[in-house]
Amino acid sequence: MLIAVIGVGLIGGSVGLAARERLGARVRGWDPGDGVLEAALARGAIDEAAPGLEQAVDGADAAFVAAPVGALGSALDAVAGAAGGDCVITDVGSTKRAVLAGRDDQRLVGGHPLAGAETAGVDNARADLFEGATWYLVPVPTTSGMLYERLHRMVAGVGARPTAIDAATHDRLMASVSHLPHVLANVLVAQAAAGVGEEVERLPATGPSFRDATRVAGANDGIWTDIYLANRDALVEGIDETVRRLERVRDTLRAHDADAVSEWNRGAGEDRRRLLERSVTGGPVHELRASVPNQPGVVARLALELGRAGINIVDMALYPAADMRAGVVALWIAGDEPAARARELVAGLGYPVAPA
Amino acid sequence: MLIAVIGVGLIGGSVGLAARERLGARVRGWDPGDGVLEAALARGAIDEAAPGLEQAVDGADAAFVAAPVGALGSALDAVAGAAGGDCVITDVGSTKRAVLAGRDDQRLVGGHPLAGAETAGVDNARADLFEGATWYLVPVPTTSGMLYERLHRMVAGVGARPTAIDAATHDRLMASVSHLPHVLANVLVAQAAAGVGEEVERLPATGPSFRDATRVAGANDGIWTDIYLANRDALVEGIDETVRRLERVRDTLRAHDADAVSEWNRGAGEDRRRLLERSVTGGPVHELRASVPNQPGVVARLALELGRAGINIVDMALYPAADMRAGVVALWIAGDEPAARARELVAGLGYPVAPA
Repeated sequence: MLIAVIGVGLIGGSVGLAARERLGARVRGWDPGDGVLEAALARGAIDEAAPGLEQAVDGADAAFVAAPVGALGSALDAVAGAAGGDCVITDVGSTKRAVLAGRDDQRLVGGHPLAGAETAGVDNARADLFEGATWYLVPVPTTSGMLYERLHRMVAGVGARPTAIDAATHDRLMASVSHLPHVLANVLVAQAAAGVGEEVERLPATGPSFRDATRVAGANDGIWTDIYLANRDALVEGIDETVRRLERVRDTLRAHDADAVSEWNRGAGEDRRRLLERSVTGGPVHELRASVPNQPGVVARLALELGRAGINIVDMALYPAADMRAGVVALWIAGDEPAARARELVAGLGYPVAPA
Repeated sequence: MLIAVIGVGLIGGSVGLAARERLGARVRGWDPGDGVLEAALARGAIDEAAPGLEQAVDGADAAFVAAPVGALGSALDAVAGAAGGDCVITDVGSTKRAVLAGRDDQRLVGGHPLAGAETAGVDNARADLFEGATWYLVPVPTTSGMLYERLHRMVAGVGARPTAIDAATHDRLMASVSHLPHVLANVLVAQAAAGVGEEVERLPATGPSFRDATRVAGANDGIWTDIYLANRDALVEGIDETVRRLERVRDTLRAHDADAVSEWNRGAGEDRRRLLERSVTGGPVHELRASVPNQPGVVARLALELGRAGINIVDMALYPAADMRAGVVALWIAGDEPAARARELVAGLGYPVAPA
């Protein structure tokens, strides 16, 4: 089996490594970046560096186009022109509607592996990057059943969970759990910066809620501007819905309707638990809040203690106090029993744990 | 000096402990909760439990009203009726405009220590809770200069940084860095839950951006409904501004204006760095992203290694991969040199660090 990888960064490189190791495939790569192909060869991500895109896909059974979202359309055009009639063509872009629109190629299946957003480059590529990850497959109306099935097997073969989804649903889902949070982070941080402009001396240590909510503000511009634009239809719909929801909250507050505010707030808490439980394994997620001195080593001590007991931390957050000498560490643990055990262990270290 | 503490929970209890230890004051407490006064006595937070609010403030030099926001107005009324003419009266509520409106008492100074939001109860009270914390003081137009100065000295004496601010600015600031992030978290989580309603099987592991942005969704309802309502004027203004900003982003996306989107996104990144730098000490904050296996003990190992080198972690976030076997840990380190050293140490442990 011959696989072409167009764009050998983190995702493309990991496809290459996994395909070589786990599918026994021969991998031919092409990348326009300086020195990228050399690095990919050195890392073992490809067997062979092609001198151009056309040569890379010549005779391939599958072509994975791992170009940045902004360059994806032209890369797909070029691959479609060069690939043979029996080559399944897929991409790994994080939005699907715009890039697939109007492409009635029987060889084409859009794709999106949910993996690896936090680092970049072939140096971070790993053969097991996709292990257990959802890998969305987005057939177009003309997609060949045989080629879809081939891609499905490859994706499963590198350890991912292939999941068919239509382009509109995919983009709406991504807008909701990824792109919209980024937009809100940007808005929140810009609003705060503008609002405190004249009151610099008065800005308190920003609260933990603000820090968490704005952590992704201004995310890697080279990637995110393209993502926002590629998913603009779904994102515009998402923003409109957010605006409607905000206006409802505002009206409730204006009306001083305590019951409605409380119901809305409790509903959000239930929604969060439900979504968090759905996205991890191991039962209901419990939150522990422990008061700790803010010294080097304390978080380590906590993590070590839970680690020794085989308890894994689904999520954590540190809330330093203003003096940076003390604080609270919040830990989210999946499963009733591990959470109860974690509570005992943390308390046993002498850190007070807030009641459940 | 005799200090009355009305409401002996985390804040009131910490006021009591700090006043006894650091101001040499005698502290008399009252609390309507079952068993709270007994616990406060046992913890050393008060010298004396009063049988009622009136008895607590009788003859006091200062009265700290640490009631929940919803009960604050009536508690302030009662204290004002019972306290002597030379008793400075203050509260610790997280919003100021509504609670102080129309109170032209010369003994009154509104207050808000930025401390202790993450736990509750006198059992978590600490004498050093306010060490280094901003403690807003909000005089009313009639506040006596002598009594303001007395409170200022007390607040500084328990280790806090007393900072005068007018009620409107205070509430706008709090809306911006605390209440609005909570509102957006609630909206985001409700919107995602509604959006994926019919597509339960399709919900991917929610992204780190979503998790961070919704961590405070549905925060403690007993506290937050009151806070939202108490600060509703500033919060309504904040929501309206957020809506305007979202509509501008939406229009930019609709117009497919890549330059404007990119400029907006980069601006948000700069705003975040600026706000984060302002709220911590030690120079510009650097972000490190390291790829790590998601095993018990790994975060501990990282934290320990940095701890040994005396490097403190301003903020951190874990981004597990879908298989929960690997992931990325993001660390925020203040100062150029500590950040560079941290980068070396993490890489030295064998965890690849993304380029700066």
